[in-house]
Amino acid sequence: MAFETMAWNAGEVVLIDQRRLPGEEIYLRLKTAVEVAEAIRDMVVRGAPAIGVTACMGLALGATQLEVKSRAEFNERFADLGRLFAATRPTARNLFWAVARMQSLVAAHPDKAPGDMAAILVAEGERVKQEDLRACHAMGRHGAALLEGPSRILTHCNAGGLATAGYGTALGIIRAAHAAGNITMVYADETRPFLQGARLTAWELHRDLIPVTLITDSMSGLMMRRGNVDAVVVGSDRIAANGDVANKIGTYLVAVAARDNNIPFYVAAPTTTVDLDTPTGDTIPIEERDPDEITMMGGVRLAPEGIQVANPAFDITPARLVTAIITETGVARPPYTESLAALVAAAS
Amino acid sequence: MAFETMAWNAGEVVLIDQRRLPGEEIYLRLKTAVEVAEAIRDMVVRGAPAIGVTACMGLALGATQLEVKSRAEFNERFADLGRLFAATRPTARNLFWAVARMQSLVAAHPDKAPGDMAAILVAEGERVKQEDLRACHAMGRHGAALLEGPSRILTHCNAGGLATAGYGTALGIIRAAHAAGNITMVYADETRPFLQGARLTAWELHRDLIPVTLITDSMSGLMMRRGNVDAVVVGSDRIAANGDVANKIGTYLVAVAARDNNIPFYVAAPTTTVDLDTPTGDTIPIEERDPDEITMMGGVRLAPEGIQVANPAFDITPARLVTAIITETGVARPPYTESLAALVAAAS
Repeated sequence: MAFETMAWNAGEVVLIDQRRLPGEEIYLRLKTAVEVAEAIRDMVVRGAPAIGVTACMGLALGATQLEVKSRAEFNERFADLGRLFAATRPTARNLFWAVARMQSLVAAHPDKAPGDMAAILVAEGERVKQEDLRACHAMGRHGAALLEGPSRILTHCNAGGLATAGYGTALGIIRAAHAAGNITMVYADETRPFLQGARLTAWELHRDLIPVTLITDSMSGLMMRRGNVDAVVVGSDRIAANGDVANKIGTYLVAVAARDNNIPFYVAAPTTTVDLDTPTGDTIPIEERDPDEITMMGGVRLAPEGIQVANPAFDITPARLVTAIITETGVARPPYTESLAALVAAAS
Repeated sequence: MAFETMAWNAGEVVLIDQRRLPGEEIYLRLKTAVEVAEAIRDMVVRGAPAIGVTACMGLALGATQLEVKSRAEFNERFADLGRLFAATRPTARNLFWAVARMQSLVAAHPDKAPGDMAAILVAEGERVKQEDLRACHAMGRHGAALLEGPSRILTHCNAGGLATAGYGTALGIIRAAHAAGNITMVYADETRPFLQGARLTAWELHRDLIPVTLITDSMSGLMMRRGNVDAVVVGSDRIAANGDVANKIGTYLVAVAARDNNIPFYVAAPTTTVDLDTPTGDTIPIEERDPDEITMMGGVRLAPEGIQVANPAFDITPARLVTAIITETGVARPPYTESLAALVAAAS
């Protein structure tokens, strides 16, 4: 891949601005934790694993800039930073995982001076990024092995290099399968309203010379009914203990159509996306975003003024519609309560 | 309703330009049959019943302008006009119905002079418009009676006054139910790529003070799973003899989600949309439109250059997912082969 989703660079967090792709490839150099938190909230970076890695780096950046007189004060101010990041977006499990991971590291080193503790956190941010990259490659191997020869894959939203530290979850599987000569076509849902499929997935795949056909979100069902789709592969923002999957709005429709057409529906996500403390999808909070994301496009109004608009960013696909969940430690099959717990245990 | 979808006005066919709604309310005055045919192809007017009525008026307009020396020449040139209109769009049954109706009228009056024949065709265009209006009101009554008290309705695309001579098929049912105090909310799918839901359905309903919430096409499933939808009502472009329904792309996804949530899925269409000569949906031609409809918006490019794009304008919802089909002559229930044939027979 010829881009970098996030990087630590001499005391700055550098992010490719995903809001401006594919038209412009611009990297933002963020100099404070607040700037990084705002970038997550404003979707400069999105995708659960990418949010997790970026939050770790943002927390590390904040730690290096704390002006404190004691370790106790450091701990207090670092907890504030954790709350800052945890409040940016509500659905992605990896965000809360990231905050918890960095805070437990702080708790594990109670005697380090603030400057030394900050240095440890900076190193941890880089480690988390490398772990995510390795996890994506492992998911790629596990997932590609599930495909039965040359395949046409449908995916929704962007679960690619741009949604992770690189390589991708769902697109990691597609990349691995493509390297093995097993991808004949990828159907990319455009993914309204933010158009992650049209702007990001199509861009990533086209750059990697992987064949991609862009469709609107409403077309996945017809493609399946025409017999053009061999498997669906998507990412996830949070997976409940029972296998219910929170992912980009529209995923449930893809899953229910896949079932109606006897097409396997695979979810690819690192174990950091699995939330064993959430028993089912019913209790996963679903972010409601600004109506202007739907009613406006490039300054042009698409709908009449004065109407109501709903803009939930995610939906829940019930576990009964999920054929398998592919993590870095292996492939979970139903019943998920047992299989997911085992894969999470294998990761730690 | 404070707008007119199509009108015959002193030798012109007048159409509201649906491509420019809701931002601008502009009426185009079309002076030749070729201009009317181009308006159908370019989606100035869309919606199967509206296309049918407009084609009748366009054929009548063309008939008044034929410069012929004999009735034989008139018949020949009028058949050319029929082919012109039949080639504009492939899916809507009402277009072919309109051509056949006007041609059978010509055949029924073999002795009329060309000028007199043209006058008969002009009167027939107006008659077809009035019949469509009456059919919409009858569908409204039949459909509203199916709702069990105050209801939240989800609809896809625009099956409203703008898709008919006025009042609408699916929106006719919603208007009739609203008049009876039985509409608490209408969820309108935005309907990419042409945004008939955002631009037309939301506009129509908001003007009639019917409560409407705009959602993207990807959100219908979540709204159903949240228990926010009591019934789905959509229109149709062609209904096969077995009850398979061709309608705007994305309708199948709505239907399969409705079934997964035990929500009734109703199709509203005049009997002129029912095609008893087409046994199943498998043989209904599906129009493929310009990729730019998906990749461009207001001159802004939404997706990278060089990728493949599919843009089928319709899909097929299998009869097994359709709870009932509401026509002007009554409500068809499965098995549709018998019930649809009876309703079509009742119309003639």
